[in-house]
Amino acid sequence: MSDTALPETCTAVQLAERPTGLPDDKTFRIVEQTVEAPEDGEVLVRVTYLSLDPAMRGWMDDRRSYLPPVGIGDVMRGLAVGEVVQSRHPDFAVGDRVSGALGWQQFARINGKEVNKLAPGVDWKLALGPLGMVGMTAYFGLLDVGAPQEGETVLVSGAAGAVGSLVCQIAKIKGCRVVGIAGGADKCALLEEEYGADAVIDYKATDDLTAAVRAACPKGVNVYFDNVGGEVLDAALANLAFGGRVSLCGAISQYNATDGIKGPSNYLALLMQRGRMQGFIVFDYAARYAEAAQEIVGWLQAGKISYRYDVVDSLEAGPRALLKLFDGSNTGKLLVRVDPHAG
Amino acid sequence: MSDTALPETCTAVQLAERPTGLPDDKTFRIVEQTVEAPEDGEVLVRVTYLSLDPAMRGWMDDRRSYLPPVGIGDVMRGLAVGEVVQSRHPDFAVGDRVSGALGWQQFARINGKEVNKLAPGVDWKLALGPLGMVGMTAYFGLLDVGAPQEGETVLVSGAAGAVGSLVCQIAKIKGCRVVGIAGGADKCALLEEEYGADAVIDYKATDDLTAAVRAACPKGVNVYFDNVGGEVLDAALANLAFGGRVSLCGAISQYNATDGIKGPSNYLALLMQRGRMQGFIVFDYAARYAEAAQEIVGWLQAGKISYRYDVVDSLEAGPRALLKLFDGSNTGKLLVRVDPHAG
Repeated sequence: MSDTALPETCTAVQLAERPTGLPDDKTFRIVEQTVEAPEDGEVLVRVTYLSLDPAMRGWMDDRRSYLPPVGIGDVMRGLAVGEVVQSRHPDFAVGDRVSGALGWQQFARINGKEVNKLAPGVDWKLALGPLGMVGMTAYFGLLDVGAPQEGETVLVSGAAGAVGSLVCQIAKIKGCRVVGIAGGADKCALLEEEYGADAVIDYKATDDLTAAVRAACPKGVNVYFDNVGGEVLDAALANLAFGGRVSLCGAISQYNATDGIKGPSNYLALLMQRGRMQGFIVFDYAARYAEAAQEIVGWLQAGKISYRYDVVDSLEAGPRALLKLFDGSNTGKLLVRVDPHAG
Repeated sequence: MSDTALPETCTAVQLAERPTGLPDDKTFRIVEQTVEAPEDGEVLVRVTYLSLDPAMRGWMDDRRSYLPPVGIGDVMRGLAVGEVVQSRHPDFAVGDRVSGALGWQQFARINGKEVNKLAPGVDWKLALGPLGMVGMTAYFGLLDVGAPQEGETVLVSGAAGAVGSLVCQIAKIKGCRVVGIAGGADKCALLEEEYGADAVIDYKATDDLTAAVRAACPKGVNVYFDNVGGEVLDAALANLAFGGRVSLCGAISQYNATDGIKGPSNYLALLMQRGRMQGFIVFDYAARYAEAAQEIVGWLQAGKISYRYDVVDSLEAGPRALLKLFDGSNTGKLLVRVDPHAG
């Protein structure tokens, strides 16, 4: 596409105010902004798909974290993919397909150092799915932090979700017994039928999670991959096997808490069982992304990994769609198709 | 001492009922019991000193742990030292000095496999102090689980206590900056003057522990050795440095909780800071005790380690003395001199 076809303005979503609890109608502001030409070292990218992720909730809060908070009035941060439409960076040409923190906007002007080219043949969605941050998160959070051994029991929460569904399948590939926790019969069926879980727990239909985990993991939990925190984390700790590991990926049940985070009251199981609870941030593994992507591509090609997307059309629908992550109503990786013409 | 001098009965302390909250007058029962001759493979030991430890509180509860609960009506469990007075085990002779879980009693009949001879020249108290379980706990919990590097900041709670005071001194020997948390001006003075702490926090005189830890650890906490749990654990997590480690040794603030254990609400710091929280039980390091003892003996001989004892006379005073661990009124390793003639 030549420069002349670019619009003068485009749609963007700004953070309007910091939410207390769940984001609401006042949290974001839809604006029209000028599409600015790139300066030296920059590229201009037409965004095709934007990834919606639970971590976004944390980025809205004004507190110490692994990234600075999004400023009030700034374009909301978000991982996305798109096509270079103007380039003033020697490594990028018009037409290059890239990923990066392009934000909630139709066009992103960004330093070339902050984007990566997609590998040939990788489609937009795959680049935000198994070969994107969620894939890297599942891969390193399970294999590096959780370090499961063949034959061990791996318990996964948010197991039907964007990261969890990959964790389940990678754990199966590595010879583990996999127990998935998800909300609702449909997700549980998906876990068993499509993601290979050996047992499932529907937390919405369970009034004693600790007993449910015990029943599903009679030899205890060797690795717990935690996406949710709260009561589920406590139930997992109560059933930790000797030397068990908790890989802390997230705590979606706590991100909108208005009366403080619930700490795991069963944390002393780490002492009794000589366990380890360890957090990670996927960005730390950047030097090893290629290694993970190569292995995941192999699994995809061999049909060993199945993956689902939940695609919302238009940026304007993004703020409301984000809430699906917190009420659990999405199934699969939640994406916004920012460019209606994107495949 | 010859067999003929043995009394027919001796004093013992039984667990009479499981406490709710703090142990009280009904928790233990003082009894006179028969001194029984050892059977094949057993030894009879005259107990000289009994160690009182926070872990005893956990042993009284009827719940899953690293050791089975003490039974109601059983002699209370406890680590102790003593002298073999009768032996039907080939490895032990009358007069041998041993340590083991001899229990709260004046004479213990026990399998020879369950006791260990003291090294020559080690006195009774040292064998229950720096060269006993508290020494091993400090050594492995700090060096193996916490894994501090030279120049790092090590934060220690219960820092003036039996384990904590050793942790502080070992961390100093290893070239760390040491910050100790204790209750009261006397303990804090001891920490600075005798145990080498670079900074101290008197938790009883502090209304904002998180701010106090931040002030004392401006570069963050690389290793937190946790003896207490509760708010102090949360304050440490809030100040965790990148890649920080929490070594979970105990949670004395929570052992008598009647309304449930307080989990660490700041546990997501493990995620943000890529931290690790890991529990351990000293018994797992049994194969390496000799290695630790050798190094600790060297430090003692070089005058690099100072150590204090708080000795209570007579078993009858044991139940009340145990409470000192929970109100913090002891300074140094709490021991019961079971044999009034013991040096």
